[in-house]
Amino acid sequence: MEGDLVPLNLERVSGILPLGGTILGTSRTNPFKEPDGAERILRNIGALGIDAVVAIGGEDTLGVALRLYDEHGVKVVGIPKTIDNDLSGTDYTFGFDTAVHVATEAIDRLHTTAESHNRVMVVEVMGRHAGWIAVMAGLAGGADAILIPEYPLTVEDICDLVQKRAARGKRFSIIVVSEGANLIWRSGVEQTVTQSAETDDFGHIRLGGVGSVLAKEIERITGYETRVTILGHVQRGGTPTARDRVLATRFGIKGAEMVQNGQWGMMAALRGDAVEAIPLAEAVKEYKLVPRGLYELARTFFG
Amino acid sequence: MEGDLVPLNLERVSGILPLGGTILGTSRTNPFKEPDGAERILRNIGALGIDAVVAIGGEDTLGVALRLYDEHGVKVVGIPKTIDNDLSGTDYTFGFDTAVHVATEAIDRLHTTAESHNRVMVVEVMGRHAGWIAVMAGLAGGADAILIPEYPLTVEDICDLVQKRAARGKRFSIIVVSEGANLIWRSGVEQTVTQSAETDDFGHIRLGGVGSVLAKEIERITGYETRVTILGHVQRGGTPTARDRVLATRFGIKGAEMVQNGQWGMMAALRGDAVEAIPLAEAVKEYKLVPRGLYELARTFFG
Amino acid sequence: MEGDLVPLNLERVSGILPLGGTILGTSRTNPFKEPDGAERILRNIGALGIDAVVAIGGEDTLGVALRLYDEHGVKVVGIPKTIDNDLSGTDYTFGFDTAVHVATEAIDRLHTTAESHNRVMVVEVMGRHAGWIAVMAGLAGGADAILIPEYPLTVEDICDLVQKRAARGKRFSIIVVSEGANLIWRSGVEQTVTQSAETDDFGHIRLGGVGSVLAKEIERITGYETRVTILGHVQRGGTPTARDRVLATRFGIKGAEMVQNGQWGMMAALRGDAVEAIPLAEAVKEYKLVPRGLYELARTFFG
Amino acid sequence: MEGDLVPLNLERVSGILPLGGTILGTSRTNPFKEPDGAERILRNIGALGIDAVVAIGGEDTLGVALRLYDEHGVKVVGIPKTIDNDLSGTDYTFGFDTAVHVATEAIDRLHTTAESHNRVMVVEVMGRHAGWIAVMAGLAGGADAILIPEYPLTVEDICDLVQKRAARGKRFSIIVVSEGANLIWRSGVEQTVTQSAETDDFGHIRLGGVGSVLAKEIERITGYETRVTILGHVQRGGTPTARDRVLATRFGIKGAEMVQNGQWGMMAALRGDAVEAIPLAEAVKEYKLVPRGLYELARTFFG
Repeated sequence: MEGDLVPLNLERVSGILPLGGTILGTSRTNPFKEPDGAERILRNIGALGIDAVVAIGGEDTLGVALRLYDEHGVKVVGIPKTIDNDLSGTDYTFGFDTAVHVATEAIDRLHTTAESHNRVMVVEVMGRHAGWIAVMAGLAGGADAILIPEYPLTVEDICDLVQKRAARGKRFSIIVVSEGANLIWRSGVEQTVTQSAETDDFGHIRLGGVGSVLAKEIERITGYETRVTILGHVQRGGTPTARDRVLATRFGIKGAEMVQNGQWGMMAALRGDAVEAIPLAEAVKEYKLVPRGLYELARTFFG
Repeated sequence: MEGDLVPLNLERVSGILPLGGTILGTSRTNPFKEPDGAERILRNIGALGIDAVVAIGGEDTLGVALRLYDEHGVKVVGIPKTIDNDLSGTDYTFGFDTAVHVATEAIDRLHTTAESHNRVMVVEVMGRHAGWIAVMAGLAGGADAILIPEYPLTVEDICDLVQKRAARGKRFSIIVVSEGANLIWRSGVEQTVTQSAETDDFGHIRLGGVGSVLAKEIERITGYETRVTILGHVQRGGTPTARDRVLATRFGIKGAEMVQNGQWGMMAALRGDAVEAIPLAEAVKEYKLVPRGLYELARTFFG
Repeated sequence: MEGDLVPLNLERVSGILPLGGTILGTSRTNPFKEPDGAERILRNIGALGIDAVVAIGGEDTLGVALRLYDEHGVKVVGIPKTIDNDLSGTDYTFGFDTAVHVATEAIDRLHTTAESHNRVMVVEVMGRHAGWIAVMAGLAGGADAILIPEYPLTVEDICDLVQKRAARGKRFSIIVVSEGANLIWRSGVEQTVTQSAETDDFGHIRLGGVGSVLAKEIERITGYETRVTILGHVQRGGTPTARDRVLATRFGIKGAEMVQNGQWGMMAALRGDAVEAIPLAEAVKEYKLVPRGLYELARTFFG
Repeated sequence: MEGDLVPLNLERVSGILPLGGTILGTSRTNPFKEPDGAERILRNIGALGIDAVVAIGGEDTLGVALRLYDEHGVKVVGIPKTIDNDLSGTDYTFGFDTAVHVATEAIDRLHTTAESHNRVMVVEVMGRHAGWIAVMAGLAGGADAILIPEYPLTVEDICDLVQKRAARGKRFSIIVVSEGANLIWRSGVEQTVTQSAETDDFGHIRLGGVGSVLAKEIERITGYETRVTILGHVQRGGTPTARDRVLATRFGIKGAEMVQNGQWGMMAALRGDAVEAIPLAEAVKEYKLVPRGLYELARTFFG
């Protein structure tokens, strides 16, 4: 967009494997939301002699990349990167394993803190459109319930479960909730609660909000002391897991190959244990949701 | 209280070094708040043939222990354990180093996530009466501002600092805030904000609340996107740091020694590099606050 | 073998998710190496009313399981667990991701310790028959060379690479070596060196030996100070990664399903993103080696 | 020495808190071992207009700093940094807490790997002159024996202890040994063993050697399978603990203060909870050894 350029020579990428975040210092912007955004990109590509654009990101970034390719003929290949793992066409995106690792570590720590009887811990994790982090970290960490955008579960269902655990002598319950989960109530209180909570443009309770609202509702209904942990951007940063690094490396090599082969409009994707090139259009057509089978597997361990 | 007993023989304590939480499964309760609480304790001590009570905890637990000793002649020694480090008479309590470790790791992760310009991260850490965790983790993690119960800093001061950083080209700011910090405003908005936020019995904005309120205020005043991380009980659990384990071991040995010597009403305390016995009365007389010198040292790195 | 039984009821498995090691306290033994081993197993199965045997392990354990099924009609299903990932028929075994995580963390730490010029770090990791851990951790950690059982690389090749890096101004080199790698020399020194080193029954330099011998040879040939890190069993223990826990959970559920379906002589296996039942015979027929393509990918980053 | 200069302005030190290693890229060298070393330093100090030298390191570095001050009048202040914690005059040096953390984590992992009966794990940690890391990590990790340079313990003593544990039904033993520990034998085998092992200039078995030799001897004497872990430089690197960062920050601030005050020939030192200036001569006069009381405390938990 700005014609800003950082040549990624050997020296500059030396030592970056253990680093999180972006070393380029880029921020996301949507060129199609600015009057002459696409034109500026085309001009810069021409002026700077850029042979190909390697777009690294999730649904937003790759959606823009696809439009640049489709509508403006920009030579684009895509690399799937999002901690949310909600991109279609690839088994995994990089960043996801690290986010699950961080969230699981937090749940592990909560498991050891039960001091009193009848305590509830609510952990809000990332996942605006899909519950991948919540389901995987919940499974790995032994959550007693997992609330995600894909499958409804009422606040009262969760309270029932918490109370049944208490009745069985369990000292506490851990509830994992995606930031994008919709809180619903069997009873008619929904209106009041969600109206007093702030909601974002998508109509979801504002980030950092769904966990707090859920915690308050659990405490109100069950009378049990309820605490909330909101991990927020802690899930996005820090040193990536070995698996994420290997996946990113494989995607990077595939991306270079795709550029050499002129496979424009395509994205590197993990399919089983192979990295393949698939059409960007397939990746961004819709969010990849947690399949019912996986959610049911996690549900086996609820309560 | 209940006459419940778990003999801590070698077998039972084998392998507990790396574990967090309580292996006894005790929960805190105040016997002096129940009609015959102290009497029940005395009866149980007699009936079970208990020679001495080793009370392990912070201001609350040790305050009760002191009353049992002072008012009822119970043979008590104290061991200082609280993640908050706010107990007088000892340089450190165990649990604190681990909590600082967890909070610092979270701040480290936030440092790598800056994707856009002008983003603010608010991290709420534990510390209801004193800002020890906030100051130590903030120093270790490189916080741009630290807000603790002891020293006032207005919301507008923090916003100024965030804006000055942005003006110097810094991509983002990290603000660490103790759960017990009082939010104050230079301007007259305080009433509105704190009235709409829930407050606890101490008049503080409810836990998991001060961070969220601060984040919303920063966003309102500066217009910068602001995200919140609330670590909550994650700071209390998990495997303790090596230093906490060594400290706990030294305190435990001192406690056994104090029982053997009949040093009732005393507490093991770290003074410099030595573990000494001090009167419980000295430990619980008032919260140990962050000294101004240490806070000023941290303040050197603000902005 | 011994008729020792631990019923795994809900209570006993509660809270084991974050634990490493075996909670059963089993040790590996080969019943076919004892005169009446198989007979004792059959007798115990009958006497204890055991409906099915779920064998959890790698090539050794599952090979025995297969023989019990084939030769004695024992109702057996297999679960693939080995940190070495060298079992055929499944993309991954659980334990592997954790071992790679530990080894990568060690390599990361070594990267930051370069104080002097011309220093070499040798890291010996597990992998007696196959170089999976070395290749994955080497890729993730940015090793400058990786030496595994599958693909020969002479000691002199490694020294050349180290010297070329030094000539390019690199301060140090990190060499990752599988415990089962064969050291070979272009020149004729092999005899001397391997004769003075202890070798095991397979003719390999004894464990904890190949790393030390390689380090000494590099120091002798290049004159550069060379240090060795031998991780040993540190790779086998500790809290498993989230991915390993989810994989183990999915394998466990599949195992229960296989028992219900009477799929004897079969093993749960990960194929792409699906867990399927495959014949045990396919899993144990030969070690799964690192494919040339993956090794070549890692080799791209050598030097 | 070389007149190489890196100005440490705000930009250059921004973001270094979580990093291990040296960002300056310095390596240790002894100017007094080169014909005109001290003279070159003096010339460079003059030519570059350097007002003061802040020497950061352990006994070697600070010993040189002291000679530069004493013999050549160089304006020097010292900052105590060594993972070994063997510097006199200060309770702690920075780097030490991190090394203990890494070693403890390794011991924790070993604790969970016991698969067979009668297995012994030997962990070699750093500490050439003093056993600080071994004692602290051994205490924190629950070592069954700790062997350090300061206090003799024969190989046979260790084997007795291992066998007694086995007799009590313990599945395995963990032995922590400092790299600088002297192996001694009650019997007369010493000559043979140490002659076949390489020894360094100090007459110690060569680094990465004492652990391996000890492991072999334990296996030979007890017949128990014995494995070795050699952490090596893994202990020196990686992200520092929060405590090390705070300590380094406090030392840094004290160093700046000492320069402003012209306290040449002095070193920042931790005394209890205060950072004070002490004469460099006091710090480097002799290695700070593990006091007998602390070793006896650790010994309480042997076996």
